[in-house]
Amino acid sequence: MPAPHPLTPLLAPGSVAIFGASNDPTRISGRSLRYYREAGFRGELYPINPTRDTVQGLRAYPDLAAVPGPVECAVIAVPANLAVEAMEACVEKGVKAVVMFTAGFAEIGPEGRLMQERIIAIAEGGGIRLCGPNCLGLFNMRAGHTPTFSSFLEEGPTPAGPLGMVTQSGAFGTHLLALSARRGIQVGVWLSTGNEADVSVADGISFLADDPDTTAIACYVEQIKDGAQFAAAVARARANGKPVIAMKVGGSTIGAAAAASHTASLAGSDAVYDAALRQLGVERAKTPADLVEIAYACTRGRLPRSRRLAVVTMSGGAGVLMADAAEEEGLELTPLAEDSQKEVLGWVPFAAPRNPVDVTAQALNDPSILDKGFELLLGKENFPSMVGFFTTWASSPQMAEPLFRSVSSAAARYPDRYFALSAIASPEMQRRYEAAGVGLFEDPWRAVAAIAAAVRCAERLGAAPLPVPPVPRDLPPLPKSRIAEHDAKRILAAAGIPVLDERLVTSAGEARAAAAAIGERLVLKIVSPDILHKTEMGGVMLDVPAAEAGTAYDRIVERVKARAPGAKIDGVLLSPMVQGGVEMILGVQNDPVFGPVVMLGLGGIFVEVLRDVTFRIAPFGTEEARRMIAELRGAAILEGARGQPPLDLDALAAALSSLSLFAAAKRTELTSIDINPLLVRPKGAGAAALDALILTTP
Amino acid sequence: MPAPHPLTPLLAPGSVAIFGASNDPTRISGRSLRYYREAGFRGELYPINPTRDTVQGLRAYPDLAAVPGPVECAVIAVPANLAVEAMEACVEKGVKAVVMFTAGFAEIGPEGRLMQERIIAIAEGGGIRLCGPNCLGLFNMRAGHTPTFSSFLEEGPTPAGPLGMVTQSGAFGTHLLALSARRGIQVGVWLSTGNEADVSVADGISFLADDPDTTAIACYVEQIKDGAQFAAAVARARANGKPVIAMKVGGSTIGAAAAASHTASLAGSDAVYDAALRQLGVERAKTPADLVEIAYACTRGRLPRSRRLAVVTMSGGAGVLMADAAEEEGLELTPLAEDSQKEVLGWVPFAAPRNPVDVTAQALNDPSILDKGFELLLGKENFPSMVGFFTTWASSPQMAEPLFRSVSSAAARYPDRYFALSAIASPEMQRRYEAAGVGLFEDPWRAVAAIAAAVRCAERLGAAPLPVPPVPRDLPPLPKSRIAEHDAKRILAAAGIPVLDERLVTSAGEARAAAAAIGERLVLKIVSPDILHKTEMGGVMLDVPAAEAGTAYDRIVERVKARAPGAKIDGVLLSPMVQGGVEMILGVQNDPVFGPVVMLGLGGIFVEVLRDVTFRIAPFGTEEARRMIAELRGAAILEGARGQPPLDLDALAAALSSLSLFAAAKRTELTSIDINPLLVRPKGAGAAALDALILTTP
Repeated sequence: MPAPHPLTPLLAPGSVAIFGASNDPTRISGRSLRYYREAGFRGELYPINPTRDTVQGLRAYPDLAAVPGPVECAVIAVPANLAVEAMEACVEKGVKAVVMFTAGFAEIGPEGRLMQERIIAIAEGGGIRLCGPNCLGLFNMRAGHTPTFSSFLEEGPTPAGPLGMVTQSGAFGTHLLALSARRGIQVGVWLSTGNEADVSVADGISFLADDPDTTAIACYVEQIKDGAQFAAAVARARANGKPVIAMKVGGSTIGAAAAASHTASLAGSDAVYDAALRQLGVERAKTPADLVEIAYACTRGRLPRSRRLAVVTMSGGAGVLMADAAEEEGLELTPLAEDSQKEVLGWVPFAAPRNPVDVTAQALNDPSILDKGFELLLGKENFPSMVGFFTTWASSPQMAEPLFRSVSSAAARYPDRYFALSAIASPEMQRRYEAAGVGLFEDPWRAVAAIAAAVRCAERLGAAPLPVPPVPRDLPPLPKSRIAEHDAKRILAAAGIPVLDERLVTSAGEARAAAAAIGERLVLKIVSPDILHKTEMGGVMLDVPAAEAGTAYDRIVERVKARAPGAKIDGVLLSPMVQGGVEMILGVQNDPVFGPVVMLGLGGIFVEVLRDVTFRIAPFGTEEARRMIAELRGAAILEGARGQPPLDLDALAAALSSLSLFAAAKRTELTSIDINPLLVRPKGAGAAALDALILTTP
Repeated sequence: MPAPHPLTPLLAPGSVAIFGASNDPTRISGRSLRYYREAGFRGELYPINPTRDTVQGLRAYPDLAAVPGPVECAVIAVPANLAVEAMEACVEKGVKAVVMFTAGFAEIGPEGRLMQERIIAIAEGGGIRLCGPNCLGLFNMRAGHTPTFSSFLEEGPTPAGPLGMVTQSGAFGTHLLALSARRGIQVGVWLSTGNEADVSVADGISFLADDPDTTAIACYVEQIKDGAQFAAAVARARANGKPVIAMKVGGSTIGAAAAASHTASLAGSDAVYDAALRQLGVERAKTPADLVEIAYACTRGRLPRSRRLAVVTMSGGAGVLMADAAEEEGLELTPLAEDSQKEVLGWVPFAAPRNPVDVTAQALNDPSILDKGFELLLGKENFPSMVGFFTTWASSPQMAEPLFRSVSSAAARYPDRYFALSAIASPEMQRRYEAAGVGLFEDPWRAVAAIAAAVRCAERLGAAPLPVPPVPRDLPPLPKSRIAEHDAKRILAAAGIPVLDERLVTSAGEARAAAAAIGERLVLKIVSPDILHKTEMGGVMLDVPAAEAGTAYDRIVERVKARAPGAKIDGVLLSPMVQGGVEMILGVQNDPVFGPVVMLGLGGIFVEVLRDVTFRIAPFGTEEARRMIAELRGAAILEGARGQPPLDLDALAAALSSLSLFAAAKRTELTSIDINPLLVRPKGAGAAALDALILTTP
């Protein structure tokens, strides 16, 4: 038997004490106790209330010390000024987990933040896991464990279903519970994290990843505090075959607070979040309705096996609409075999038999068409997924029962298939379909979109994680001072990023001597710690014949001295003149959440006008780098659009991966890296960083 | 009093005959009669049934001729082979409109198509407006007029509400009715158009535009048959202050059948539909759920006055989410004045007072915060629109009534404001809010998105239509034969599209003589009806000094003769060498639905890799052209991105408008026009078509 999850005392304890438990079950301090009683908590329950002998019919204790047995979990709903005392009593009693509703901590400002630090210190010292403060608590319906005052449980306990939900907003999390319940989704475990003094969304995901009765995990996230912890939790869910669906909000405000550097200004944190969620294999939902629909699609007891989808409809219009939706969502409506199409036409001469299969309203007259159609599509045609549009038939006096019989019998014959209906049914009929393993969607477009989301989840769970090369461990420390361009390139070259064969020379003689070995045509660039914009200062000369390197040296130094008389000149960088290829921008930004994040963009107008950039958390391998490249809207340019030769994408992918490994190795020293441009040359000719800037943490 | 709409006999007749009316109210031929009785039709109703004296309790007539009074509208549900006879009887009787349910016409193939032609001929000859065949009919609940067998009315008549709905799919239209009803939207008039032998979606929109009790129009469209008629109907709705919301499906399949020419291959008809709907001021809904939510938002008795929106919430999370939604949808959450913010903080010290205004759960303890908050936002702050997030409060025992009192009283005090809630309420409570003029949305994101759609609708209705210059009437006819490049340019130049000063020369001497007048540096292009790819055949010379024009003439002719010995050479085109500016692609495609459609794209990678193009129906003026330009994703390039000078957008807009006027004038003669490229030069320097191809209808 595996060791219990570290959060078991919080989410599935055997004994619970409730501080300040009120006898009034409508008050915040009384609600949780009422919910425990209604949910049938099977452990020991100890109301703490110094003024009463019994609370809501249970024996009450004047303080925690008076409780006879051990207490695994405590609920603290007392005012903030009493919370410290309560925490200390918990340590004394050996409590392992605390749910703290109390507000008035970090969310109210510096004073509250200090108080929160104190609470954290007590918890850490006593080995207590703390949920909150300033949270609505949590519930685990499988254990009847309800340390929450969420109004969601006011109408009684909810069935312990397969969806786990973690939310950073208690009130909005309650709204999501209500929306889910209306949709027929049962949330078994729900956790609101409040101020996240200790227990975070990632902790919740991690617990749910191990919980055997949870099959999918939905999250509402405003801000991830620790990207690595979040990534590890999602990886755990993935290893256990559970899709994670997340709604991440706050893009508009957080975006406005984006940092000032080039990479970051293109990023906006939401773009980084978006890329990170994709990279981690999280399905991102944009709206609450999306979150609920995707969660519904992912908790039907199975996931779709592939992108192939059969659409069967009684309305041609709905078929067209679902075909549109399937194309947009990347599902494949492969046409039926010729003889299968003939078979369909044999039942309904005016049917559309390809896929969508429009059996028309003819099934009203001959319901056996449904049985034959489902069998053809799931049996002979072997579709892994099927969606049927049957509008109000599911609730019509004439068709409701024949339709249900056909659908449920087909679902029972093919239990490994994903079968959904777009139909309008009574809640009771909806539950019957769901019990038969068939999901119901009123909107046919959403049915297809939700199936597509479930397909993506299944694909991610089925795919092996992409390999990540080891992060180098023995790199020399980075200089703390400003790093000159040629030093930056040397550092990057050592990390595996291709650069040109460049030489720093400090006299015309050195330039002459070095020139021939570099190439026939050269580029000269001034090297000066005082000159940022070399071109404007006359500090760049292009396409210089090697034979003229000495003269050119003198000219460039003279020009720069004339325009920037005070500048210290360290010398001139000689490099070969390289032409042909496409300029890319590579960057690294040390993200406060996810650590070093690598950016890739197409140079020039693509980055500057279209903001065509993409991100990945470091480190990653070349396969992940390939995905990055493919995500660019202008990716076709790299593959040989407009009669250009295809570019050396192997070299680009290798450079991206190497950059990510370097960034990961240097995460504590780095602020940012800009490689602008990296010239990617035609296939086989490699790539080269033509300019580079490394900024280290001061 | 205005003349009644021509479709009045179809949609609001005083007398109706039903062919083949069955005594069995569950059969197709009996349903419509049953619906009439239940809906309380106030006109004369005549069942036609030769085998019975009474049908469903009404006196029946053996045939139409036996009906004593006049018959305005007839419902034909008899089999196809009897439909012709029924139509002839209608003509005989002077019937003005027919609703034909009967299937077996154009939808079944050539034979049915012939039969449909016959029906059409009879209808036209007899002055009858025909809805169908192969349709589910229509209803006008205000008149109790129900010539339909849609199952939607099976559970009784529906209230006569403010939404009008026109649908090309009867079954899917019924589904939309059911979705709308579940959402609390009442559809007063519903029309399914079936095969559209005569009455089209546009006819339906036109009738609803005039119907005084309809305030918004929703459409489900698979294919528009006559773009001009559709445009006129939408314009009529707009003139009468009614938003039109359309779901257009079939993009994926129709797209695949796109025509082969360059412009068309970039277009895909869905892009043209999309542009046309935008240009006409139609709000396009992507999914059924979107259509329903937008229709709901647009039938609340008022539309939002501007993009300014106040968000008030009891959950910080929902506030963040609604701020994200507002930014994405282009709504403006302008912050409250400083003193207003202080006022909010006076009520709730830990409130977020800017906008979103988060009053926290404090209103649970002090509901007067709601009254004060609404008054502050609608009164002092004068927000034209407000959305509140109150989750389950609208259905909670404690808060439901206080919340409703506050909201309904604020709505009553400010009846010109747009007030929506995101909340979960019972259907009864939902109806109470709606009666108070407040829309309810379960999903806060959708609440904001639907308000934004309503804002767009209001803006379109409020804006004066853009001016369209007159289409030229006196242009000479286009040649039927292949039009050479220089002729195409001459034709376009006459239509106001700028071209360069070019000369066709046929000898070295002519070239020498013409050169100096053209410019210092020239471009030479071979002119030959046999050579399509001039560059590949050596038929283009760039940047030739004027002094060398004669030699260059000989060389280019020699080169082309060597590579294409059999080609007929008409001469060489001399034009000035022009540099600087951005190359655009302009095109015209004669769309089967909308007639000439003008395309604009940025040249090079933007068109070829990013498919960055936009469309407009011709003709249009320069303001519409400006909107086209602004729609390009790469528009920033034209406005001076990357240190380039801003371009002459006046010249580009004028060229687009001129092209559209020319295309409109030549709609019967034109197949397509390609101007690739049109060089747009820096501001003040104009533009010039550097190459042009005009294809005429054979």
